[in-house]
Formats: sequence, C-alpha cells, structure tokens
Amino acid sequence: MGEVEQGIGADELQLATRNHGMPLEALRYDLTPAGLHYVLIHYDVPDAQPAWRLEVGGAVRSPLLLSLEDLRSRPRTTIPVTLECAGNGRALLEPRPISQPWLLEAVGTAEWTGTSLAGVLEEAGPTGGAVEVLFTGADRGIEGGEEQDYARSLPLAEALRPEVLLAYEMNGAPLPPQHGFPLRLVVPGWYGMAHVKWLRTLTVLTEPFEGYQQARGYRVRTEPDEPGEPVTRVLPRSLMIPPGIPDFMTRIRYVESGRVVLHGRAWSGLGAVTKVEVSWDGGWGWHEATLEAAVGAFAWRGWRFEWDAPQGEFELLCRATDESGAVQPLHPRWNVGGYRNNAVQRVRVVAR
Amino acid sequence: MGEVEQGIGADELQLATRNHGMPLEALRYDLTPAGLHYVLIHYDVPDAQPAWRLEVGGAVRSPLLLSLEDLRSRPRTTIPVTLECAGNGRALLEPRPISQPWLLEAVGTAEWTGTSLAGVLEEAGPTGGAVEVLFTGADRGIEGGEEQDYARSLPLAEALRPEVLLAYEMNGAPLPPQHGFPLRLVVPGWYGMAHVKWLRTLTVLTEPFEGYQQARGYRVRTEPDEPGEPVTRVLPRSLMIPPGIPDFMTRIRYVESGRVVLHGRAWSGLGAVTKVEVSWDGGWGWHEATLEAAVGAFAWRGWRFEWDAPQGEFELLCRATDESGAVQPLHPRWNVGGYRNNAVQRVRVVAR
Repeated sequence: MGEVEQGIGADELQLATRNHGMPLEALRYDLTPAGLHYVLIHYDVPDAQPAWRLEVGGAVRSPLLLSLEDLRSRPRTTIPVTLECAGNGRALLEPRPISQPWLLEAVGTAEWTGTSLAGVLEEAGPTGGAVEVLFTGADRGIEGGEEQDYARSLPLAEALRPEVLLAYEMNGAPLPPQHGFPLRLVVPGWYGMAHVKWLRTLTVLTEPFEGYQQARGYRVRTEPDEPGEPVTRVLPRSLMIPPGIPDFMTRIRYVESGRVVLHGRAWSGLGAVTKVEVSWDGGWGWHEATLEAAVGAFAWRGWRFEWDAPQGEFELLCRATDESGAVQPLHPRWNVGGYRNNAVQRVRVVAR
Repeated sequence: MGEVEQGIGADELQLATRNHGMPLEALRYDLTPAGLHYVLIHYDVPDAQPAWRLEVGGAVRSPLLLSLEDLRSRPRTTIPVTLECAGNGRALLEPRPISQPWLLEAVGTAEWTGTSLAGVLEEAGPTGGAVEVLFTGADRGIEGGEEQDYARSLPLAEALRPEVLLAYEMNGAPLPPQHGFPLRLVVPGWYGMAHVKWLRTLTVLTEPFEGYQQARGYRVRTEPDEPGEPVTRVLPRSLMIPPGIPDFMTRIRYVESGRVVLHGRAWSGLGAVTKVEVSWDGGWGWHEATLEAAVGAFAWRGWRFEWDAPQGEFELLCRATDESGAVQPLHPRWNVGGYRNNAVQRVRVVAR
C-alpha cells in the first residue's frame, strides 16, 4: 500500500471521514453497489429542492428551463462508466499535498442513465462565438478564499461528444443524494471533477471559464505560482483485490503459499487497456495477466493472474498499459495539488 | 469540531479511507439514504456465497439450517434503528487510541426488516444451561494476533428481546454488501459491534464467550491490562447539521448574522431523549431546543433551535439528556480503546 510519511492533520481527517473510497475488495463487482462507489463532496450535499429546474442559457438562441420530467421524456441512454477522483493516490506523494488524503480507493463503476447533453445543447442552439459550456452545481462553499458554487466548464467539442450525459439514474435507481440528485453531468473518460453534481445551470460561454475549480483547482503544477496544465482525462491504472485475509490495523494480507489467484480491474481514459502485468520482485520482473472483456467502452476491464506464491513476505505490484502506449510508472510524479498520481499499486502480502 | 492533536498515521488512514461516516448534513434525513449511513468493516466485505445457509446450533434441542427464503417466509418486522459505532468520537481523545479515527460521523438511521431472533431461537429450543448466543459472521482476518471470523455474543435475555432482528433488508431493499448481505443481526439500542454482519452461525452457549471481540476488543479500560467493562448500550448524543456553508479545508461554517435555524438529531440507547440544549459560550449558558417526535422507539429524534446570531466567531455546542438522567459531558472520558466518547459536539461558526 506504500507508506504515508507525515502524520495526517485535523483538516485532512475531517475530509477523510466525510468522503469515502471503495474498499478494494469491491473490485470484485462489475458495477459498484450503492454506497461502495467513491464519493468526493467539495462542500455539503445540498438539500433537494422540489422546485428544481435545469436552466440552459448563455450564448444560445433558445434558452431552456427543463424539469426532471422534461429530461426523462427525452431520448434515454445508459452507459457503464468508471469514475476516478483526480486526487486518487494523493496521500502517497511526498511531501503530501494537503487536501482529501486518498490512498488508492477513489474509484467506482456505475451504469449511468440519462439523456445526451448534445441533444439539449442542440435544442438550445449555441451561437457563433460559443467555445465552452459551464456547468454549475448547487453545492456552495468557500475554497481558496472564494465563496462559490461548484462550477466547471468543458470545451464545446467535448460537451458535444455523444456519450456525455445529463444523468438522473445510477445503477437503475434515482441518483443518491451524494451522487448528485436530481441531475449530474457524466463525462466518460475524464476524472471526477468534470462530472458536476447537483446540476442547476448550463451556460454556453464565448470566453473560457476562469473560475476557481478551472483556473486554480485541478491544475497540474510543479510550482505553486505557475498556471499549470488542466487535469482532464484519466491516466491508466490497475488495482488488484488484496488477496487472502487482512490484519485489521496494518491491512497486511495473509495467504496460503502455493496457487493464489489474483484478480483486479484496469482502466484508462486515454484508450482501451491493452495489458496488465504483475510483479513480486519490486518491479524487475513483470508477468502478464489474462484480460477479461471490458464492462463497457468507458469502464474497467477485469484481469486475472495465477501466482505460485513461495513462503515469504512480498510486495505485489500491478500495472496497466493502454492503447495510447501510456503505462503506469513505478514511482509517483509529484505535483502541487496531488493530482493524477497513477503510480503502481503495492500490496504487502505474507505467504504462509 | 474539536482538534486532532497528533498526526494520523498510515494504519489509521488505511482504515479511514475504507470505512466511512455519515456527512453531518445527512442528519436532515429521517432515514439515512444508502451509502450515507456509516460503515465499519473489521476485515473485508465477504463475497456472497450462493449456497449460504444460517446454521443454528450449540445448546439447542433442534439445530436448524435456514435459507434466506426460509427466513423471509417467517413473520416479518420492520424497525427504524439509529446505529452508532462504539468508536465514534475516538479521534477527539488525547492521547488518541490507534484504530479507526472517527470524529463524530459514525452514525446512521435505517429501517431494518427481518424476522425476530427470539422466534428462531424458540424453534431451536435452548437447553437448560444456555446463557448466551454467539453470532459469527463471514468476515475473516487477524486482530490482536488472533486469526478469527468476526464473532460476538449476547446474553440470552438480550437475544430474546422482541425487537432483536435477523435482518435481510435495509430501507426496503436487500442488504447492501457492506451492511451484511445476506443477513445481519440488529440489536436496537446497542452500539454497532453487536449487530454482527454476514451472519453464518448462531450458537447457543452454556458458558460466556471469551473470543477476541468480546473479551479483548470493545471493553472500556483505563489501563491496558485490566479486564474492563463490556461496551453495550449507546450513550446519549446530539449532533447538529453544521449551519451555513463550509470552507472546503477547515470545514469552518459561515452564516449570516441574525436568525439562524439550527437543526439536529439526538438519540440514546438508555431510554428516550428528553432534552437537547444548545450553547454558544463554551457551555456556560444552555438553551433548550424544541424536540420533534422520534423516528421510532429505537431511532433518533429531531430538534430545532432558532439562534439569534450576533456577528463574530463562535463554537456551537449541543448536548442531549435521556430519561435515564444521562447527559453528555463537556469533555471526553478517555479509555484505552477509545469507546463511548459521547462528549458534546463543537461546531466552529463565523457569523458575518
């Protein structure tokens, strides 16, 4: 699992007890059951408003005001999507960026049902100078000294991708409050910050959005005062179900020596996963796992590897490669905000 | 919220990212929606076994082997129950006992549906010397150096209380995996450790159970080597929905000065909550809140208080009193395992 070098502080603990990851044994499910999917809430889960409507405005010819019934009566699509927080792996960086202290569990896969964002935008009719669509949610708070509603934009071309959804169901049920009831954005392939929850307004913009969550948060920087690169698509990652049984406190795993079937999942927002490999000698020797079919074009795929475990103590590693050629690094690439750390998983195992 | 004095270590963080509390704004719901209810898993969420049966044995005249269908065809009861982890508040103790580092959010209320444990026990027919019933779950791990399935017992008289359930539904749906699918015990009024999940066997005992989770875990001790008192019923607690909006990192709350409606919940396993009070001067002056009807005999009750907030910085406190006369203390009572810390909640608020 790697080590956390400095103690976690009070602010980080407050975030860690509110937000939650997916216990890694839940990698066994193709679709993550309700309550096991990761959740990251910037401010508070807002109280649902009976008078809720989605406002579609800005640089459009026909502003729209849509009820949930209006949205449900539009063409309906269901897509399984693997969603991962851009801060997954943050607590394994040294020095550790101070924010939600994820280890490796900020992930989940759900079937999202909704209507195409492109369909709604086409009906509203962006005007000539449109460059982005801004998505504003109902959760309000203070971050970086700015009072704000959580808001993020997408370039118009991304917003018009056919698989981008205005989603009102998760795994066949209305969205749970913590996943964005009544409506959220789903942007397959992008990290979680793009999938704005508790959506209230879509605003077509003629200039790029410069709000906190776009221009200051979710940027990859090596120095605090540089503009940095925006966080966008999910880098490849593979995780295994920790084998055997755990020690309660250390989470070190105990297995019987001999045949140990390792099972995990791998995904990437850059393209299909083409290879998963396992190592038990610190990453010198890599052994290719058998890949299973992907749960969907934008969802994880399973993998299996039969490990003939000698007696002893091991650190099991796994890494994914995707069709873009991207491969998980052995060691993290540090950045100020602690984003996109897709370094290989390390699982401590004692074979008895 | 109080302060965490020493940094949280790697082992505690691994537990904090697996287990999760209820974000306190979810106190607004009478019944906690799926995925917002707290979860504490000692080892792993076990994989559900299609051949699962509940074995009822030990000191009984008629051992039973019951399928889920057998259990569902027995008399059915639904009870709303407020469930709280015995370790809630642990991370606010100094020095901090090392285990799951809860602040105050390890709670939730659900409607549990199942069949009476007493009915099943009566059918099995405990023999003359029976003193306890042992409940063994399917989650296996190592704790305190012992390899074990999670197991806890109840005195026979507690096990025969009519409201103790073998529960197969939570809020009207089959149990989610992390809440004990296919079957768990529900012991209204007791802390969470008694509500054994993933139940496999009920064993009627003629001697008290001395396993790890009974004789070593879940004991209130002031010295590590004393036997200590068993943790049993939930002490009174009140929590408020943090008012206004939060700062992302510090979770300090910002409200407009003037009328601020505070809303919260209070519960106790010792008897009905009879009073909730609010303070904003460090616990010198207490102001009585208006109580709402309880959600059930074993579930929390709402409370409201209209605070006329002057401009300034405050620490809001609330405390509950129950019909046994128990009242929440201003400061924690430390113990080795960090159990039953029901000291008052403290919420930092800036009124602008």
